[in-house]
Amino acid sequence: MDFTLSLDPNAPIPLHQQLYNELRRSILTGRLLPQQRIPSSRSLAKSLGISRTTVTQSYDRLLSEGYLETIHGSGTYVCSQLPDELLHSAPIQPADRQTQPPIHLSQYGNYLARTSIQLQKEPNQPISFRYGSPAFDCFPLKLWRRLLSRHSRTTQWMDYATDMQGYHPLRAAIAQYLSRVRAVQCTPEQVIITNGTQQALDLMMRILIEPGETIALEDPGYLSARRIFLSHGARLLPIPVDEAGLVVETLTKPVAEPIRLVYVTPSHQFPTGATLSLPRRLELLAWAMQHHAMILEDDYDSEFRYGDRPIPALQGLSQAQSVIYMGTFSKVLFPSLRIGYLVLPPDLVPIAVQAKWLSDRHLPILEQIVLTEFIVEGHLESHIRKMRSFYDQNRQVLVQALQSHFGEQITILGEKAGLHLMVRLQTNLSDEELVQRATQVGVGVMLARPHYLVPADRHELIFGYSELNPTQIQTGIAQLAQAIGSPP
Amino acid sequence: MDFTLSLDPNAPIPLHQQLYNELRRSILTGRLLPQQRIPSSRSLAKSLGISRTTVTQSYDRLLSEGYLETIHGSGTYVCSQLPDELLHSAPIQPADRQTQPPIHLSQYGNYLARTSIQLQKEPNQPISFRYGSPAFDCFPLKLWRRLLSRHSRTTQWMDYATDMQGYHPLRAAIAQYLSRVRAVQCTPEQVIITNGTQQALDLMMRILIEPGETIALEDPGYLSARRIFLSHGARLLPIPVDEAGLVVETLTKPVAEPIRLVYVTPSHQFPTGATLSLPRRLELLAWAMQHHAMILEDDYDSEFRYGDRPIPALQGLSQAQSVIYMGTFSKVLFPSLRIGYLVLPPDLVPIAVQAKWLSDRHLPILEQIVLTEFIVEGHLESHIRKMRSFYDQNRQVLVQALQSHFGEQITILGEKAGLHLMVRLQTNLSDEELVQRATQVGVGVMLARPHYLVPADRHELIFGYSELNPTQIQTGIAQLAQAIGSPP
Repeated sequence: MDFTLSLDPNAPIPLHQQLYNELRRSILTGRLLPQQRIPSSRSLAKSLGISRTTVTQSYDRLLSEGYLETIHGSGTYVCSQLPDELLHSAPIQPADRQTQPPIHLSQYGNYLARTSIQLQKEPNQPISFRYGSPAFDCFPLKLWRRLLSRHSRTTQWMDYATDMQGYHPLRAAIAQYLSRVRAVQCTPEQVIITNGTQQALDLMMRILIEPGETIALEDPGYLSARRIFLSHGARLLPIPVDEAGLVVETLTKPVAEPIRLVYVTPSHQFPTGATLSLPRRLELLAWAMQHHAMILEDDYDSEFRYGDRPIPALQGLSQAQSVIYMGTFSKVLFPSLRIGYLVLPPDLVPIAVQAKWLSDRHLPILEQIVLTEFIVEGHLESHIRKMRSFYDQNRQVLVQALQSHFGEQITILGEKAGLHLMVRLQTNLSDEELVQRATQVGVGVMLARPHYLVPADRHELIFGYSELNPTQIQTGIAQLAQAIGSPP
Repeated sequence: MDFTLSLDPNAPIPLHQQLYNELRRSILTGRLLPQQRIPSSRSLAKSLGISRTTVTQSYDRLLSEGYLETIHGSGTYVCSQLPDELLHSAPIQPADRQTQPPIHLSQYGNYLARTSIQLQKEPNQPISFRYGSPAFDCFPLKLWRRLLSRHSRTTQWMDYATDMQGYHPLRAAIAQYLSRVRAVQCTPEQVIITNGTQQALDLMMRILIEPGETIALEDPGYLSARRIFLSHGARLLPIPVDEAGLVVETLTKPVAEPIRLVYVTPSHQFPTGATLSLPRRLELLAWAMQHHAMILEDDYDSEFRYGDRPIPALQGLSQAQSVIYMGTFSKVLFPSLRIGYLVLPPDLVPIAVQAKWLSDRHLPILEQIVLTEFIVEGHLESHIRKMRSFYDQNRQVLVQALQSHFGEQITILGEKAGLHLMVRLQTNLSDEELVQRATQVGVGVMLARPHYLVPADRHELIFGYSELNPTQIQTGIAQLAQAIGSPP
């Protein structure tokens, strides 16, 4: 590792403390990256010319605080995911490279200085049940490249956009697609093109929420959304979720502070996979209208629905301007395209358009043109049909394998839609032991735990099935059952 | 025009007022677009079944308030640029389609509701001295398309980014390029890839500035930057500009409120084109360090410098963590690529990285890969060399034409760098008359006026020379001289 640490033997701070500070800062600032291997205590001691005990002392503290982890027989690594407590830890100490006072920050900047958002741990085992990304190998890449090539022939796409809301033909194509497929009621004038759902969420926070105002959200729910809400200083009101989705009854109980906004994933609740029932949808809409609350409907993977008919989007059921609908092409096409969209109540459009323009002007134009043609020529819907049947097959293999290997020991949730399902396990093992045992047999599994507001052992695993083939799924589950599958 | 207006003859509001309201809202919400032609009063009256007087009454009010403009012999149009006063006009009335109360907004949302940011008026004449965009026809499009095609062959670029700060090889290429060409002192770890300068500015506002805090900025200065500062509720302290750039002396006079941040374009002040002198650079850095203020250095077109040697960037001259350096590929390559970058003081990096990730995760990856190869293989610098000589030729032709046609009547400013220069004219014509007369002879010119904090007639024109050829430049200036060139 090419890594320089500056320790000062003459400083009043003990060496092991200096080393701890330096390493901690390196981890928090990303100089040391998650999953990066760090030198053994012996070799670091040697290269720094200090005693091995000093190094061990610093390492032990970093291990106990969750900055580092040891992998048996392999070495010491920077944790891929830092423990939740770190999110509220002390600010990162400015390096003492300057005698300047710390840089003056805004409230938002100060919040971020106390926070340490790390990319979520992605297992990297021979068989990993990753979720969140589609099956790249099935993407019609040749066709996409042909469209890229065709539309980049002239220079027309190279200048600044002349439409602040996003490429108009793309907005028209999205509006038409959504009205047909999701019963969303909108015109192209209500659609704003965003850099994924992430930007859509951030823009909505910026124009709707003041620090200290209350947002209701599903618990468990989408971690990335929660992080955005927290960064805006929102107070979070967690609402439980059951097999019919958000428990709207809990939401409608009187609370001290007005609820400004409810964030929901009604098509395929993340991560439990529940579908919000029609009666609950109507109840939620009535409540929002009565309390002048906005509903943020995140329809991130509604395209993949197996068996039963989809329920219309909340947006299309609403009689009022209470629903903000968000979608993305990250799951149906690919995430690095970075194209998502907002469908807004008319009154919010001029405000959100300006917020988008002020925040980054617009997205690259070539991709918007290519995507438009991809939709208009019918490739989007035929790709979705193809992928639905591909994922459906994987899903059936996974459900069958889980049932035959685990039987009564598990409950399968949310298998009717999307690219993942959730498994609730009866076990005496801790969450950490579950992951460790799986890793030992070369199977990567992910916990539902980070998506809960209060982290605790819940024995819930999320299984993504988009990136594996049936044989891998069967083998993976069989191995997993051997490793963790003894009844409690 | 396919345009439905809903008027209610039984409502208590007079019809001409209803029509005025509807049209005004349509303009503010972008349903009617700038430069869009609206029907004649006769044909609108006929299609709505109302009297022509009613329509004329509404049109006259909209004309007098600057929402509409008539072009002699051509018809009535939506104004391309709404008058500055509108930026502070009453909030857009919510449509009466609902009996709901207005949607509750944040402070930021409320500011935007009172604002109406329109795209800047771009002349569209046979010969238009547009500025801000490079010469697209000279771009090595074939090469770019080959790189796009080469790097999109595998699926590796399609997933979410694993680096929150931007594609690491691109950051390394930018750091190396900047240190060689601009004497910027940085490692790839200080570089964050952004969606253009616009996002870089917005992110810095978010993490550094609270509403009510003071930002010093050049006056005249870059309108888009000012809009971002205003949207964040910053108080603006305008600092004059002379032939050596920002008058630092004015900045250093004692003020009541601490100045948190100074926004400067030192290489080629926008729009005057002045280069900030080395003594002033050092003075500015000393002042910033002493007052714990940050400097935002926007180096938007420093690549194009004719004749004299460039002065090192403020960032490279700084001994402290006071300078935030911003650059973009919009001028050297093309704007719709949407790639810019921040070079940050080390202490700000972990904060800004999180702000960027929370705001939109990351930029499309394919473009970042292609751009990296374009830089690493030396195409960027050879393209810059080629364009420098191309623009230099245009610039010389322009300066010569201006001098020979206008002589003593004009002062030319900022012709030593960039893609535009500024002309100060001695004339009795108003700014509006200047533009109108130019338009009448088929020449598009743009005023410096919108870039001043206080709009007033200044007889200053900005001439972009990137998109024209020498013959067009010569013809354009000759025609312009005929139209406006009589001495005062």
